[in-house]
Amino acid sequence: MKVQVVENVLRANDELAAINRADFERAGVFVVDLIGAPGSGKTALIEATLKAMPGVRIGVIAGDLATQRDADRMAKFTNHVVQINTGKTCHLEASHVRQAMSGLALGAIDLLFIENVGNLICPVGFDLGQHCKVGVFNACGGDDKAAKHPYIVRESSAIVLTQIDLLPHVNFRQQVFMDDVKALNGSAPVFPLSPTTGDGLEAWLKWLESAGLGARQARGRQM
Amino acid sequence: MKVQVVENVLRANDELAAINRADFERAGVFVVDLIGAPGSGKTALIEATLKAMPGVRIGVIAGDLATQRDADRMAKFTNHVVQINTGKTCHLEASHVRQAMSGLALGAIDLLFIENVGNLICPVGFDLGQHCKVGVFNACGGDDKAAKHPYIVRESSAIVLTQIDLLPHVNFRQQVFMDDVKALNGSAPVFPLSPTTGDGLEAWLKWLESAGLGARQARGRQM
Repeated sequence: MKVQVVENVLRANDELAAINRADFERAGVFVVDLIGAPGSGKTALIEATLKAMPGVRIGVIAGDLATQRDADRMAKFTNHVVQINTGKTCHLEASHVRQAMSGLALGAIDLLFIENVGNLICPVGFDLGQHCKVGVFNACGGDDKAAKHPYIVRESSAIVLTQIDLLPHVNFRQQVFMDDVKALNGSAPVFPLSPTTGDGLEAWLKWLESAGLGARQARGRQM
Repeated sequence: MKVQVVENVLRANDELAAINRADFERAGVFVVDLIGAPGSGKTALIEATLKAMPGVRIGVIAGDLATQRDADRMAKFTNHVVQINTGKTCHLEASHVRQAMSGLALGAIDLLFIENVGNLICPVGFDLGQHCKVGVFNACGGDDKAAKHPYIVRESSAIVLTQIDLLPHVNFRQQVFMDDVKALNGSAPVFPLSPTTGDGLEAWLKWLESAGLGARQARGRQM
C-alpha cells in the first residue's frame, strides 16, 4: 500500500510539472532548478548571475523551510522574486512552483532560477517543470560530496563548484572532485567559480546562454 | 490514506527506536545523533573528538547515501565503526541503526556517535534511540542557516558551529547566528570550534562528558 501511495503522489507531481513546463515554454522562459546543500552558495550564485547579466530578464523562485531572507537578498537585483516557505517539507514540488508562478509575470522573464530547498538528496526526484537541473557544490564542503551524492550528479546538466576563492584555506582536492563527477556523469560540464571574486563566472554565464538558446531552438523559436 | 501510512511508518520507527534505546542503556552507552548539512563538518568533528578523548571508548555509526569514505576516515582512530549506505533514503531510521548495532560490541563502547546522512531537514523527525541530537552548522555555510532550519535547532540539546578557523575569510556574522539560535532554543549551548586547529574543542568535550554523566546518573548508574 505504501508503494501505491508514493506512486500516486509522484504521478500527480509529474502531471503538474508537465503543465508548468508547457506554460514556461509558451512564455519562452528557460528554467533552471538549482539543487545544493544548505550553504553551498546557491543564493550567492544567483546574485552574481543577476549582477553579471543585466540585459537578461531573470526571475527567481526561492525555496526554504522558513524565512524570506533569500528573496530579500535577490530582490535588490530583480523585481521578479517569489519566496516559497515549505515548512517541514524538504524539497520543492511542482505544486509549490505552480503556486509561485501565480506571483510571476512569465512574459517579462527570459530565465527563471528555481532555488530549491537546501538539500542534496530529496529535491532530485521531483520534476518541477524545469528545463535542466544544476547541482551546486562548494569547496568548503569537502571533495567527497560528488561521490556521496551520485543521484544529483547523474541528473544534472551542469555542476557548479562554488567558493573557489577559499581553496587556499581548505583541504579540497579539486581533481578528486572532478574525477568523481566525471565517473558519474561524463557529459555534465563543471564550473568552478567564486561569486565573491567573479573568478570562473564567465564560463557559467556562457553555458547558461547556450543552454537557454538550445532549449529555444529545440522548440523552433528565436532567442 | 497517505497520512495513515505515514503514521504507521513513524509508529513502527518509534517502537524500534525505543528498543534501540533500551539496549544502549543496558550496555551503558551514551548516544549522540549528529545532524548537519553535507560538508558541515560532522566527520571532522568526530575525528577531532576521537583524537582528543583517547581514554573514552567511542563508536561511530556513519550514514551516507553512498561510499564508505567516512568510515575509512574514522577507522584510523577507533575499531568501532559501522558505515550504513542508505541508497536514496535521505535520513537514518531506527532500523538502519538496529542493523548497524549488530556490527558493534556495545559492551566495549562508552559513547556512540550516530553521524546522520548529510541533511539538515529530514533526519530531525526520526527517533533512532539516541539520548540527544546535536545540530552541526558551519561558518562557510552562512549565518542565516539556524533561522532557516528551525526544527533541528529546536530539537537539539547542543549546537556546534564548525570552521571558525575560516571566519576571517567568509562573511559570517557570528552574533546573528547566535541570536537566531537563542530565539529558537534558549537552552541549547552553542560551541563554536575548529576541528582543524582545535580552537573551542575543549568546551565541546566537557559538555559531552557532563551530558553522558548526566544520562548515566539519571538511570542510577556510575560513570
